[in-house]
Amino acid sequence: MKSDIDALMKARNLDAIAIFGNAEHNPPMTYMTGGGHVSHATLIKKQGSDAILFHGDMERDEAAKSGLKLISYSNYDAQELFKKANGNGLLAGAMRAEMMFKDAGVTSGRVGVYGTYDLSAVFGMLSHLQKLAPAIEFVGEPREDSLFMRAMETKDETEVNRIRRMGEVTTSVVGKVRDYLTSCDVNKDEVLLKEDGSLLTVGDVHSKIRLWVAEHGAELPSGFIFAIGRDAGVPHSAGNPTDLMKLGQTIVFDIYPAEAGGGYYYDFTRTWSLGYATPEAQEIYDQVKEIFDTLNDNFDLNVPFKNYNQMTCEYYETKGHPTPLHTKAPVEGYVHSLGHGVGLNIHERPFSGFTAGDDERLSPGVVITSEPGLYYPEKGMGFRIEDTLWVRPDGKMETLADFPYDFVLPMKKWKK
Amino acid sequence: MKSDIDALMKARNLDAIAIFGNAEHNPPMTYMTGGGHVSHATLIKKQGSDAILFHGDMERDEAAKSGLKLISYSNYDAQELFKKANGNGLLAGAMRAEMMFKDAGVTSGRVGVYGTYDLSAVFGMLSHLQKLAPAIEFVGEPREDSLFMRAMETKDETEVNRIRRMGEVTTSVVGKVRDYLTSCDVNKDEVLLKEDGSLLTVGDVHSKIRLWVAEHGAELPSGFIFAIGRDAGVPHSAGNPTDLMKLGQTIVFDIYPAEAGGGYYYDFTRTWSLGYATPEAQEIYDQVKEIFDTLNDNFDLNVPFKNYNQMTCEYYETKGHPTPLHTKAPVEGYVHSLGHGVGLNIHERPFSGFTAGDDERLSPGVVITSEPGLYYPEKGMGFRIEDTLWVRPDGKMETLADFPYDFVLPMKKWKK
Repeated sequence: MKSDIDALMKARNLDAIAIFGNAEHNPPMTYMTGGGHVSHATLIKKQGSDAILFHGDMERDEAAKSGLKLISYSNYDAQELFKKANGNGLLAGAMRAEMMFKDAGVTSGRVGVYGTYDLSAVFGMLSHLQKLAPAIEFVGEPREDSLFMRAMETKDETEVNRIRRMGEVTTSVVGKVRDYLTSCDVNKDEVLLKEDGSLLTVGDVHSKIRLWVAEHGAELPSGFIFAIGRDAGVPHSAGNPTDLMKLGQTIVFDIYPAEAGGGYYYDFTRTWSLGYATPEAQEIYDQVKEIFDTLNDNFDLNVPFKNYNQMTCEYYETKGHPTPLHTKAPVEGYVHSLGHGVGLNIHERPFSGFTAGDDERLSPGVVITSEPGLYYPEKGMGFRIEDTLWVRPDGKMETLADFPYDFVLPMKKWKK
Repeated sequence: MKSDIDALMKARNLDAIAIFGNAEHNPPMTYMTGGGHVSHATLIKKQGSDAILFHGDMERDEAAKSGLKLISYSNYDAQELFKKANGNGLLAGAMRAEMMFKDAGVTSGRVGVYGTYDLSAVFGMLSHLQKLAPAIEFVGEPREDSLFMRAMETKDETEVNRIRRMGEVTTSVVGKVRDYLTSCDVNKDEVLLKEDGSLLTVGDVHSKIRLWVAEHGAELPSGFIFAIGRDAGVPHSAGNPTDLMKLGQTIVFDIYPAEAGGGYYYDFTRTWSLGYATPEAQEIYDQVKEIFDTLNDNFDLNVPFKNYNQMTCEYYETKGHPTPLHTKAPVEGYVHSLGHGVGLNIHERPFSGFTAGDDERLSPGVVITSEPGLYYPEKGMGFRIEDTLWVRPDGKMETLADFPYDFVLPMKKWKK
């Protein structure tokens, strides 16, 4: 939680932290500012002091919404610095940054750098700044274990409510897609038809999903997945827009809307087969559902998340599926880990893969996905069931948005 | 253009370039791959050789769409490296990167680093890699003058057509907003009413804008602006959602949709006053329109873009408005520069501010905005007119999407 930041800085021997970039689509900056349209900003926080947000003058109103201490870039004369730096933009930026760090009380020590932003510009600026301020050591941290990933790992109730709200948006949209698909007419080749009688494609469904998410004012990362057949069997294939929507094929629908501007996410997947399912698909789906339910029955407070990934592998191997337990980087069967934390990042701590830490646990306040998929692209099928769950302070697990788990969706106007 | 990359590398004494991050919302990666849902990828290109895209195994189908030479991360044993690095994730990443650079034929020389991605992780990884591969010098470049900003400065016709298509989306949405607003009923306080008789807010209009952009399958950065009154006078204020939509107040509507996944942008602004305008607002609007037209009449092939910013300042100062020509960082009057290039970045070369280079010119192939605004937040008003223009190979300037410039929009059901 945000209140952990000073303790985390101390534990990591960081005298200060600096975040670069925009307040949108930049989790550490969004975390500290609450979001808003503040671009090219810099946030500096000395250990034990309040954070300062340095911002462009034009964006003072948006910056003020953060409630942070503000300093406008116009306090530093950009044209003068540019001249002094002989037109070297990186050096001019480093000279300004040196003054900003000074104004934040930072002239020496270890400074952690964060943010999602232009790597080239920040790397180049820091190279110059390192020479101007040799008493400061700038340090980076691994993505999955950065100070912010640690702080963000446990959520307070305000954060959980924002995630829950995105869960409501998600299940509302998924319900609309289900109702739309099952209401379609079907031609003799078992292809779904649009209102005007033309063939319904995956691309048509993608458009509807985008529209229905936008109706809620939420943001839909374009990598959302609505894929059928072989594409459903490739875990991160978004779905081929020209594929036809047909009965009896597996559909993987993985959607993770976020608050507009890159806020909190919800992550959700269902697998459907329209009208009917092949016996082979039904059998595999039932296995996915069985381990999904078993996991829900077994999730327990403070247990390492990866233990449940191990449990999933063991179950799948008894059913004859390849898993990372005994197959290196399998391309079919169980090919990804069980789940991940969700918050301002769609993937964050705790992680559940074999390289995850023993300290990535189901601690009170974490929000995770459980998504035990199976993939057989060569058979033209894929399966994943995913909910987002919160480990409540009382130790109980709570699914943050409910939606039915039906695999076969009966068509309203079609019978076998 | 993309074909300039090897020449730019040579001119900058770069033996190789490396791009980190996702293929979405990451202009250099999108430029090289064409986009697609490829996350945590790395692209390495040695001077004179084809680029190689290193990608996760699960995303092989999306990676293949790039047409680039591919190498899967599964070629490098992540678990083995993690062990070798004693669980230091940054070091393990650096060890893998060293092998990737080797596989791309890069073992020494200057390597430019690019991409929009997690600064902490890449900075930390490069710090380790620098020690593992001391013969390589990693270099950053200023944002506005990076190799990619240079390459992207001139567009080929395929790129211009993608921008033009987003212009069509933009003007279609703006037209819908205009038609919606002017059809509203108005109460005795001159506040617009929704269909159900309740008061229409700026937030309601924001929702409609989002929905209508989503209908086109385009992406709308959440920083788009639809602001009224005082907020219209603060150039980057998005608009206060609870403000009421009233007659006779200036509305600044600045919208810049992009292709889904962070592709090409279009940038566009109109200023409206519903029903009627105050004489003071009308006078200022006319001045903005006059310089906007004068600029269009004067734009000429290969002239430095900043000359037109100077022309705008001079014109505004004759009308008594503060400008950066004689006021440092003005907060009212003409407070930003004339325009900027538009492409995979909403702001890219050529720039037009006083610190812009003499070489940022209206060269054939550049796509720019012209947006000479005026802002008076204390008077509760702001003004900006903006189109996106292409400097065609034949030297003619072409506005990429047409839309009327009316300031006062007559209300269909209301008369003064």
